[in-house]
This record gives sequence, C-alpha cells and structure tokens, in this order.
Amino acid sequence: MIKAVSPVAPTTLSCLRPPTRNGFTSRDFKAEDSIIRVGEAVIGGGSFAVIAGPCSVETLQQLVDTAFAVKESGAVILRGGAFKPRTSPYSFQGLGEEGLKLLSLAREITGLPVVTEVMDTADVELVEDYADMLQVGARNVQNFSLLKKVGRCQKPIILKRGLMTTIEEFLSSAEYIMAAGNPEVVLCERGIRTFETATRNTLDLSAVCVLKERTHLPVIVDPSHAVGLRRFVQPLARAAVAVGADGVMVEVHCSPETALCDGDQSLRPEDFSHLMRDLAVMGKAMTLLS
Amino acid sequence: MIKAVSPVAPTTLSCLRPPTRNGFTSRDFKAEDSIIRVGEAVIGGGSFAVIAGPCSVETLQQLVDTAFAVKESGAVILRGGAFKPRTSPYSFQGLGEEGLKLLSLAREITGLPVVTEVMDTADVELVEDYADMLQVGARNVQNFSLLKKVGRCQKPIILKRGLMTTIEEFLSSAEYIMAAGNPEVVLCERGIRTFETATRNTLDLSAVCVLKERTHLPVIVDPSHAVGLRRFVQPLARAAVAVGADGVMVEVHCSPETALCDGDQSLRPEDFSHLMRDLAVMGKAMTLLS
Amino acid sequence: MIKAVSPVAPTTLSCLRPPTRNGFTSRDFKAEDSIIRVGEAVIGGGSFAVIAGPCSVETLQQLVDTAFAVKESGAVILRGGAFKPRTSPYSFQGLGEEGLKLLSLAREITGLPVVTEVMDTADVELVEDYADMLQVGARNVQNFSLLKKVGRCQKPIILKRGLMTTIEEFLSSAEYIMAAGNPEVVLCERGIRTFETATRNTLDLSAVCVLKERTHLPVIVDPSHAVGLRRFVQPLARAAVAVGADGVMVEVHCSPETALCDGDQSLRPEDFSHLMRDLAVMGKAMTLLS
Amino acid sequence: MIKAVSPVAPTTLSCLRPPTRNGFTSRDFKAEDSIIRVGEAVIGGGSFAVIAGPCSVETLQQLVDTAFAVKESGAVILRGGAFKPRTSPYSFQGLGEEGLKLLSLAREITGLPVVTEVMDTADVELVEDYADMLQVGARNVQNFSLLKKVGRCQKPIILKRGLMTTIEEFLSSAEYIMAAGNPEVVLCERGIRTFETATRNTLDLSAVCVLKERTHLPVIVDPSHAVGLRRFVQPLARAAVAVGADGVMVEVHCSPETALCDGDQSLRPEDFSHLMRDLAVMGKAMTLLS
Repeated sequence: MIKAVSPVAPTTLSCLRPPTRNGFTSRDFKAEDSIIRVGEAVIGGGSFAVIAGPCSVETLQQLVDTAFAVKESGAVILRGGAFKPRTSPYSFQGLGEEGLKLLSLAREITGLPVVTEVMDTADVELVEDYADMLQVGARNVQNFSLLKKVGRCQKPIILKRGLMTTIEEFLSSAEYIMAAGNPEVVLCERGIRTFETATRNTLDLSAVCVLKERTHLPVIVDPSHAVGLRRFVQPLARAAVAVGADGVMVEVHCSPETALCDGDQSLRPEDFSHLMRDLAVMGKAMTLLS
Repeated sequence: MIKAVSPVAPTTLSCLRPPTRNGFTSRDFKAEDSIIRVGEAVIGGGSFAVIAGPCSVETLQQLVDTAFAVKESGAVILRGGAFKPRTSPYSFQGLGEEGLKLLSLAREITGLPVVTEVMDTADVELVEDYADMLQVGARNVQNFSLLKKVGRCQKPIILKRGLMTTIEEFLSSAEYIMAAGNPEVVLCERGIRTFETATRNTLDLSAVCVLKERTHLPVIVDPSHAVGLRRFVQPLARAAVAVGADGVMVEVHCSPETALCDGDQSLRPEDFSHLMRDLAVMGKAMTLLS
Repeated sequence: MIKAVSPVAPTTLSCLRPPTRNGFTSRDFKAEDSIIRVGEAVIGGGSFAVIAGPCSVETLQQLVDTAFAVKESGAVILRGGAFKPRTSPYSFQGLGEEGLKLLSLAREITGLPVVTEVMDTADVELVEDYADMLQVGARNVQNFSLLKKVGRCQKPIILKRGLMTTIEEFLSSAEYIMAAGNPEVVLCERGIRTFETATRNTLDLSAVCVLKERTHLPVIVDPSHAVGLRRFVQPLARAAVAVGADGVMVEVHCSPETALCDGDQSLRPEDFSHLMRDLAVMGKAMTLLS
Repeated sequence: MIKAVSPVAPTTLSCLRPPTRNGFTSRDFKAEDSIIRVGEAVIGGGSFAVIAGPCSVETLQQLVDTAFAVKESGAVILRGGAFKPRTSPYSFQGLGEEGLKLLSLAREITGLPVVTEVMDTADVELVEDYADMLQVGARNVQNFSLLKKVGRCQKPIILKRGLMTTIEEFLSSAEYIMAAGNPEVVLCERGIRTFETATRNTLDLSAVCVLKERTHLPVIVDPSHAVGLRRFVQPLARAAVAVGADGVMVEVHCSPETALCDGDQSLRPEDFSHLMRDLAVMGKAMTLLS
C-alpha cells in the first residue's frame, strides 16, 4: 500500500543557488561598498550615519520632542519601536499600529525618515506602509520566514545581529533577505551574550572589521543595547567610528526617567549633543589616517 | 500644533497581568506536575516519553519506514520537519505543506501522533490542521509573535530552548504561550552555545533540574541536536533519564547516509532499538531510587 | 656590534616530541583504559569511584567526622583543601601545611587515602609528602609550570577542567603531566562557564563521552562545583554514572551551615548516604545495558 | 582520641582585611588615576603608552632589530617572552633565562625598558633581576600563588585578563597583588572567549569603560592576542584610544613569517609605523573632545 504513494518529485527539493560562491552579501559578488539611501540619509560608502530615537514610541509629544532634538544634533534617521520584543508577556509590548501612525506623523513634522522594528510576517506590509526602513531585531535574526518576507519589501532593512549569532550565520541571515530580492540591507552589531555581566552584553567591535572585509553591506553599531548603561554609550560610539563602522544607532529619550522601556541606556538630548560632537571629532580624525 | 495631538490613552499601555507572582508556568500557580496528552501518548507525571523520527520529512516511504521502526521500539510520538529552519537560504528548506500531508498520512498508517515545527505565524493554522503537536524551534524561542499565536492553538506545544536562552527567559517564553491561553507546553532542553566545539552544542542537563523545580510543565531533552554525533546520543539520553527528565526527542532515520538534513546525528533503527532498551533499564532503576 | 653576539644555538629551540601523533593521553598511544590506584582505591577500568569530603580542611574533628561518614557510605578517597584558590585575597585561604597534617592524620585514623589541591610549584614536594593524590584545580589547568612539576611526582594527579578549557586544551594540559613522566592522571569535568546563571557553572556531561573516546585516562565528574547547589548534586551524579564516567568527586561536610567555604553545595552525611544508594542502583543498571 | 587533638587556633583563620569596602584597586581607596612609571615610560594619567615587541625572544638580532624599529615609531616599552605559556608541551616553550639575558642586552643597546612574562613563583626573583616590568599572563590570572609572589616585587606588573575572567574577578586578582604590597599594577584587556570563532577571541572594549570607572589603575588593551589577525590590529588599537584606554600592547616582529610564535598576528615594522601614526591622530582627537 505504501509503495502506491508516489514519492515527492525531485523538483520539490530544488533549492535556490547563490550567485557566487559566497553569495549576494559577499565581496565576491560585489567588490565596492553598498550605499543605502533612506530619504535623504545615506548609509555606507564613507559617510557616518547616526540613527537615534527612543526605544519605544510612547506619545507624539515624546516622539517629536526627541526627533527635533536628535535632528538638531545631526541624526539623519529617527528610530522608535511600535512593536516591542519583550522577554516577559507582562511588559509593555508597544503601541502597535498606533505607534506606526505616530512615527509617520513625526516624519511629517520633523522631516526625518523613520525606522522601526517588524516582528511578525503578518505585519510586514503594514510596517512598510508607515516606515522608511524596517528593522529585524536580534531575537529574530534567524526567523527565516520573516527574513524572506522583508526580502520582498521595497524598503531598506536593518538586520541586527543576535545575541548568539556567529558572523557567518549573520551573513547567512542577510543572504536570506538578498536572495529574496531586497539588496538594501544594513548590518548592525549590537553586542553578543557572554559570561560577563558588568555590561548588558559584550559589544564585539572586531566583528565590524570582519564584516567590512567579507561584505559590501554597510555595518553599523548599536552601543546602547550592547552596554545597557547610558554613561558608556559615548566612548563606545567613538570606538565604533575608530574601528571603521558606517554609523551608529543610539537610544535617545527626551525624558529617560519616565521611559517605558530601556530608560537606563537612553541618552538625554544634551548627552546626545555631546556624543555628536565627539563623533564629529572622531570622524574628522578618521579622514587624516594613513 | 503638536500639543493638539492627544496623547495615547493610558489604557493602550495596559498590560496583561500574571496570575501569580511567577506566572502560569510556575509551581506557585500549579504545584503538581502537568501531564500533557498527545493522542495516546502521555508526557509528564512520571512516565518517560520518547519522541522520534527524521529531521526532515523527505518521502512517505522514508517517513513510514522510520515511524514503524521507532514505534516498534517504543516511541510514542513521531517527529518530522516539514518547515525547516536552515542557516543558509540555499539549504533544503523542507517540503512545506506537502510534508505536512505526508506526516498526516504516516499517522494514519502507523497510528503514531505527529509533532512538527511551525516557523511562521501565517502557517500556524495550517500546521495545526495536520499535526497533533506543534514545535517552536530554538531559533524562534523569542519570536514573541509566534509564541502568542501558538498560544491560541488547541494543540500542545513543544518549546525548544534557544542556543543562548537563559532558563529564566525560557520560562518567560513559555509564559507567553500560557498567557495566550494554551496550557499545554512541553519544554525541551537541546543544548546551549558555548565555546566548546567538540560537540555541536553543550547539553545543559542541570537545566532539567532547575526547570523541574521551578515549573510544573514537563521537561524533555533532545540529545541529537545538542551533541550532533550519533554515537553520543545514547549515553546522553540515559543521562536525561537519570537526571529526571520527562522524555527525550531523538532523530532517527531509516537511512542516515542519504538524509537531506542532520544525517550525522540521526540514529539508525537498530541504534534506536538499543537506545530504547537502555532507557528501559534506566527507567526501571529510577523507580528503585531512595 | 650586534652581529658579534652569537645567535641562540638551534638546540635550545628543540622541543619534546609526542610519542604518537596524539600524544601520551590518546588512545593511539594506549588503547585500553588506564587504571589508577590510590591506596586501595581504584579509578577507571569499569569501577565507579567516589571521592568525597569537605571543600576546606578546617579542624581534625570536622575532617574525621566527615571522613568516617563518607567512608561508611562507600567513598574510597577523602578530599579536602589545605591550599584554597579563592577569588578574593580577603577570603579564607586554607590552613596550608597545618591542613596537610590534618589530612594525614585523618588518613591514619580512617584508613582513607587523601587527595588535596596544590597551587604553587614551590609546594609540590610538601603536598606530595602528605597526600596520596594531588589535585590541580580548574584555575591552574593551564599553569604549565605546575603541570610540569606535578608531572615529576610519584603520585597520581586529578586534573580539573578549567571554566573555559576546551576538551582539546584539557587533553594538552594532561599531556604536559604525562610528558614530564607521570602517567597517572585522572581528568575531572567540573562545569564550564557559560551565560547561564541559574547554576554556578554548566556541567558538560557530553565532555565525558568525548574524553572517554579520545583518551585512555579515567574521567570523573564533580557535580558539586558545577552546579553549586546541594539539591542538584544527586541527580547530576546519577547522570554522571549514566553517561559513563569513572567516578564522581562530591563535597560533603558534617555541618554545611558552618562550613568556611562552599557550604551551599556541600552534602550532609545523610544526603551523601542517599546519593551513594542512588549511585549503586545506577551502577547496577549500567551493567545490564546492551 | 580525636577529641584530644586540639582544634586549629582561630588565629590561623584570620584573613587580610581590605583597606576600604572595595579594596586597594577601587576608586574608594584612591580617587585619582594611578600613574605607573617604567624607566622613562609613563602609563596612566592621560598619556597613551605603547608597548611593542615580539611574542617570543628568539635571537638578539631579532630582538634588537624589532626594538629599534618600534622605538623609532614611538613605542616606550619593549615586550618579549622568555617563558612562553603554550597549550601543547611540544610547542616552543621560550628560551628561559637565556631569553631574559637577551632582553636585558636589548635594553642596554636600545634604551627601552623591557616587560616579560613570569609563569612560575620559582622564577619571580630571576625575572625581576632582568626585567623592568613583569607580566602575569591570561592563563595565570587566577594563579593566586603567583599573584601573591609578584605582589612582593619592587617592579610594576602587567596583569592580563583571562579568557574567562569577569571584570569583578579581574579586579580581585589585581587586589591580590596590591594586598601583598605592590601598588604598581597595569590591567590589560586582551579578549575573552566567546562562541565566535572568526577572531581568536572577542575583544571586550566595554570592559575598559567599566574598569576605568571602578579602578584607579591604568588599563591597556592587547589587540594582537584578542583578534589574532594582523590586519585587524590597527583598527582595534584605534578603538582602544577612542574608548579611553591608557595604552596598547602589540606584537611586532621584524620578520613575522619566520616567527616561532604568533606570526599571524604580529605586525611588521612598517605596519607598526602606520599604527603609531593612526594612534597619534586619534590621541590628538581625544584631546579635542567635549
């Protein structure tokens, strides 16, 4: 009886094939640096882009106050979470579509393009409607269904490295997005999980060097999530410039004390202003290197 | 102008609340062991359940041959992947719905209930239609959208620990499922990522002790993925019994040499038969303990 | 002028050579299991040896009370620290030679051979004078000077795996001892450092499987230090039997509440008696395996 | 009979006491930055010190050629290993005292003070006789006997963080040296062991921030051992400046291809010259920060 059931046709097993040995993400496929444009912002190719904003979208006031502050200091993209990945189901989960609307309003008011996280394949179109750039968070770096889905978006993607993701796996996850048709991927190092507990995670700046060698995609750094403490964001952001990253993403909140999420690691507008001055000095220094 | 925009109503920020301090998963909420039934199979409450089958569903012949073999040796649930989470987009991704149909046929033919992984919120209903039990894989352990979605299923869930998931985070992920309404969760320790490379991952059997103390949910062990080498599956499965786990999930393939996935760690039917004899001896010993 | 300085003669650079490709520790060099004898105790070759005693030697009373208790339950070697490696210089550092004398007295009184840690090359002869077996602790697993020195001892050595020692490095450390002339080495898995904090360290029982395959040396397990919590020592010791270890080393204290060191993980004599009954049942089961 | 044995006198148990709550290493004990002088070199207190030289001392020619090259580019201390901690007993173990003599000669010839590793308590006086500064290596960071012994030296110590050492443990190890009487300790971050294998270890630059906050001791960075690949040493050394480190230690070899040890990570003299120019630019930028 079993024999009567026809086996699956071999064609079903056929796989995609990489365009070159190391795939779309590799320098084999494309030698020169990719440049990703988000509105007027440019990531990669020699510029240093700063993405800033609150962990979570809370109110329009909070969002716009923060947006104007970071724009004034030189940020080129506004970040803010509408769908929040939280360890506990009892933590604030984000405002959802309401948050997306507020982000969209903030863009209209301030002129800054916005990036926000998408967590569910079912929400990809919705997020794409409101945002200028989509983020796949660290916990979803190997959510392959989501990677395929954002690979069919027409908007650029920030892909964050997971807490446990090797550099090779990280590039494979970016390959999913590119293989699905979206070439606009920005990689973000945001700390890995180690035995050390003095900082939230361990920022792996060597990974920036390794990634820049292997891939043409821009590589940015998120010191806020990596270190988890406001006062260490500034030196680590400087180090990100020094190591050759294409930008940073930092959490800024107009009132960190009242933040619904990640207040301890959020910079105040005045901290951010100092940070930007430091980054300008560092950036200038980088142009003088041998 | 901005002031005119009304702030988000406080109600939007309201969160779920845990039923007791440590939530649905805790012994605070339910002191006695939970028992999960899958067809005639029982997980938890003193029995030792063995789930076995191939990594991927390939053909009906492969599936049914393997299923009969593992059933004969005493397995109570058949496992097999239709949607496969693969690091590379160029690796075999599973047969998808075709694979689900084959699993369903295998159940009809052999009488074994089937468990299979779901990776995408969009596929949850589909998988629920075909399978008796759904698995959330290690890479999706903090895919909170997926956890909420399977939390609305009427079928039991196996939740695998991620490669870098702390025990506390693991329980929080199970809490997502229970808070969404599904009390039938089986936790599966499958190895964590460490610096050691002699084995695929590091099986954390201490976690079984910790979990059994904190939660009433059944805890099973997957030695196949943890160690990644066929010859070490048997001793580690014995150790899982000895440490007090409620079951094991092991990969078995009627022809590991030709397996499309994870052949190196798959037991042959005769290996599995030896394993089951070992587990019976160990199980008997456990009843004699002080 | 510099040229006038003669270069170092090539002979100075000559190194030891391994006896076979993988060295003295490998199955290449010796296929059958090594058996290490310590007084009347036997480690390796099919027996299951239990080493027990307090973390630190405190008083003769404490040592002898504990020794008689563990001997009565079946322990074959008494452990106890005279030189204690402590993270802080302000913690109790052990009794030093006074502790060695007490260990020696305890052996005379109880008839149990004793094992104790040596931390300093300068103390090796001293410790060898008093003890029947020397221990190199986890923090000194790559203290190569110490390894060479104990390699010239006439007494067997327990070498503990470090918190971040790969299996390959662990065997290389054992190779130092054997290459220096001492073939009597017992390897001890005692947990590795990972991100998980629910247990003190993560016991890596897979390492026992890997080690037993690669080396003829006996492999024992220290669940006390690995897990750090008394109530989990028993299930993990059972698992050590099940996975094929040659013995366990456990901390037992006649009065854990007053212990100067590691009281939380020390078994009481009655706990140890239960443990030994469990291990006997497990050991019996192991003889019945296929 | 046992009762007749007098218990250990309580005085034996007495411990050292820290001078303040967090010990000698803490900012509690000393608020302002410590400045360590080695010959004419200064580490800490605002300067940025570069220590450079070969992994191993091989010949006087090699040592002097390298020393002149690094001195010319601005290095202030010469490093070179005479006693080499090697994973395998069959690897080159260093020239021992012969190497110390060559270091001493190199100092005479070039005028650079020298730092070299000591691995054995028995060699501390010997090394102190020849070297200007002693190094305790990563594998000996919790070799407490060695820490106590170098704590009685009259020369400054570089203490390297171990592969598995938390920041808290690292400071406790430094505390051992200071509690024994030697206040001149320089801490060196040199990468920790994580799951990532693309680099030799993972350089933890956040640790520099944390250490600088907690301790008055100078903190330097060793990018060579951390990353293990020559081409990434330069960007990581720049990042060390940017993050606020007090110096770097880098491996330089006049002929890396023929190096007996660590050739892959050693800079050539011309690479080092570029590196020093980069560091000067970075250092200048740091003086311009807000």
